Amino acid sequence: MSTALPYDPQQLAHRAGELVANVRELAAAGWTPATSSNFSLRLDDSHVAITASGGDKSRLTEAGVMVVDLDGQPVATDRRPSAETLLHTQLYSRFAGIGCVLHTHSRNQTVASRLYAGPGHVRLDGYELLKAFAGNTTHETAIDLPVLPNSQDMRTLAAQVDALLDRQCVWGYLIDGHGLYTWGRDIAEARRHLEAFEFLLGCELELRKMHR
Amino acid sequence: MSTALPYDPQQLAHRAGELVANVRELAAAGWTPATSSNFSLRLDDSHVAITASGGDKSRLTEAGVMVVDLDGQPVATDRRPSAETLLHTQLYSRFAGIGCVLHTHSRNQTVASRLYAGPGHVRLDGYELLKAFAGNTTHETAIDLPVLPNSQDMRTLAAQVDALLDRQCVWGYLIDGHGLYTWGRDIAEARRHLEAFEFLLGCELELRKMHR
Amino acid sequence: MSTALPYDPQQLAHRAGELVANVRELAAAGWTPATSSNFSLRLDDSHVAITASGGDKSRLTEAGVMVVDLDGQPVATDRRPSAETLLHTQLYSRFAGIGCVLHTHSRNQTVASRLYAGPGHVRLDGYELLKAFAGNTTHETAIDLPVLPNSQDMRTLAAQVDALLDRQCVWGYLIDGHGLYTWGRDIAEARRHLEAFEFLLGCELELRKMHR
Amino acid sequence: MSTALPYDPQQLAHRAGELVANVRELAAAGWTPATSSNFSLRLDDSHVAITASGGDKSRLTEAGVMVVDLDGQPVATDRRPSAETLLHTQLYSRFAGIGCVLHTHSRNQTVASRLYAGPGHVRLDGYELLKAFAGNTTHETAIDLPVLPNSQDMRTLAAQVDALLDRQCVWGYLIDGHGLYTWGRDIAEARRHLEAFEFLLGCELELRKMHR
Repeated sequence: MSTALPYDPQQLAHRAGELVANVRELAAAGWTPATSSNFSLRLDDSHVAITASGGDKSRLTEAGVMVVDLDGQPVATDRRPSAETLLHTQLYSRFAGIGCVLHTHSRNQTVASRLYAGPGHVRLDGYELLKAFAGNTTHETAIDLPVLPNSQDMRTLAAQVDALLDRQCVWGYLIDGHGLYTWGRDIAEARRHLEAFEFLLGCELELRKMHR
Repeated sequence: MSTALPYDPQQLAHRAGELVANVRELAAAGWTPATSSNFSLRLDDSHVAITASGGDKSRLTEAGVMVVDLDGQPVATDRRPSAETLLHTQLYSRFAGIGCVLHTHSRNQTVASRLYAGPGHVRLDGYELLKAFAGNTTHETAIDLPVLPNSQDMRTLAAQVDALLDRQCVWGYLIDGHGLYTWGRDIAEARRHLEAFEFLLGCELELRKMHR
Repeated sequence: MSTALPYDPQQLAHRAGELVANVRELAAAGWTPATSSNFSLRLDDSHVAITASGGDKSRLTEAGVMVVDLDGQPVATDRRPSAETLLHTQLYSRFAGIGCVLHTHSRNQTVASRLYAGPGHVRLDGYELLKAFAGNTTHETAIDLPVLPNSQDMRTLAAQVDALLDRQCVWGYLIDGHGLYTWGRDIAEARRHLEAFEFLLGCELELRKMHR
Repeated sequence: MSTALPYDPQQLAHRAGELVANVRELAAAGWTPATSSNFSLRLDDSHVAITASGGDKSRLTEAGVMVVDLDGQPVATDRRPSAETLLHTQLYSRFAGIGCVLHTHSRNQTVASRLYAGPGHVRLDGYELLKAFAGNTTHETAIDLPVLPNSQDMRTLAAQVDALLDRQCVWGYLIDGHGLYTWGRDIAEARRHLEAFEFLLGCELELRKMHR
């Protein structure tokens, strides 16, 4: 019986539909190549709706969305969550105000992660679009998008992210050779942050091709 | 009662529909990232229909279009106009023949604005597509697309634009780190100018990548 | 009465529909910026269906297709043909086997025309896709795509093209700062040639960005 | 009578539909320019469904899919198979576990084949997306994508591929100036491999434009 579920199934149905519609748009943009990438929305204080492991994201359906708790453990399902689930749930655990986490693999994101892995961040400054990040009201600022080393051990990655979040307030990070994590209070804000990072990384790479 | 409105509501309905259809096409081209960009059409001698602040332009509806007067003040609405409304209305005030103003943020526009902020203009010459600008009948000409410094103070930006328009006849300008403003007598002409600037900036950037 | 027309109006209706469907696809690819580009199909021994001057090609309808004779003069219409009509009709006049002429303005075409205007041609060699050009059966060959100087005088341009065709067998040419003309026995062959030139020019430009 | 056919016609109908839907998506991505590229699915132990020679792949229909045996000979059809059919059937003959072979001509694939023809392979290392290749479980690895010389003699090409497969386990290869062959146990896996190669080649080319 659905009354036995520890979350509201109607809320899940609503969030899964929202996730599917948005993820298909991100897949159409080419940001989820080769069944990569994963996406989540907060259901309540202790549950998250997240895309299951693998699968072509351009064909995602509600059946490809599962529920995990804030430790990343599957709830009332035998589906396998993505190996990277922990990187989503650590954000929901840490910040009550986060409602959505998006992880994509665009070419710009991956290329930038390789180029800036050495310095450990991409400096973005002087762009009007810096105002797209919640809390920013001017282009006369700079944002450092961190680049973390990649690891197949999610505990290692999560520890790096925690150390990062202890040091600074950020709206996203890159993992070297991998892709971008970004988030927001809801899916609209998270997508605005994603589009802004993607755009600004694209500008930086174009400028580097001209050796500026 | 609609008779109390200082503009023709049927004219607004018509223009809002035209604006929505066109803006969605520009958003689909990727020229309005992260809820940026704004767009307007002249309603009559003293009113302009303009997109309200923020919002994903690929989902723009008629409800996202509002009316301002030529000073940029909202008319018969409690919606907030974009901070950049003044850059639209100064053009309608100055030139009775302008019927449409388009402000976009494509990657080419933003990258070009960074590269050419130093010299203060992008020189476009020898291209057949220079004939796309109203009044040009040959490719044997050159156009300087001005690049203005960015500012969060719209009065400062507007004063720069006024000084520019005192000096030269132009169909558009870039703002550094920001994007393009372009205009025309109607939306078809303004889009033709927008497409021509976007194309020519793209060509110039490609040539620079090959160090020509 | 339609019986007074010097061409078969049913044939025109058929060809205009074919042209509209194909041109909209080329416009969607971004190869007709800012109302540029023009396209034609042979109707019979002495008539050609051709897109009228100007207009956004992504919105082309049958009403935007007109008939000219092989001298480029409008037939049974008061529409104005494109200034470049003569560059279409000279091909139909010269080669009875040509059924379609396509003139596009992609960014790759325009950039390549600027880069290779000096040598006067783009050498394409060693590509499997050279087999896409009618008559080629191997990649172990080379094609020189000519680049002609631009002119607003169509008689000058047409004379250059005639001199070129006297010298060599080609399936297309670039005009400096402008775009590509290509052709074939029917619209399918002409599009195959167009796609092949666009692809190969794109490859050459990419290789130049890597200084190879 | 269909009972005379050496393969199951219902199985063919099913596979042809699957192939058409997938090939149209690959064509929409721009990876099949100028009627190039070919695609196949295994029907049974001794038959393969493969796209017939030529034709715009964005308009592929079930009628454009034919059956060949494992020697590449047409079965129960007078259609002409692609000249490259042998490169498909040699894979099905050699590996019972292969269910799908995809051959595409994207710009990235062709450009990479030219750049890396000298060394004879493209080294891909340190990318998270290496995990997209069946059998890989970590980014801490490297894949060498072989680049073979082109030839119009399919026996020569097939012999090169056989020698390659004797030496190493690979999920694809490039042919110089030509394109990519990749495969998998079914169309979903083959497409995942195709998307991963395309993405990783694109990253490598971008990095080379920045001289890294």
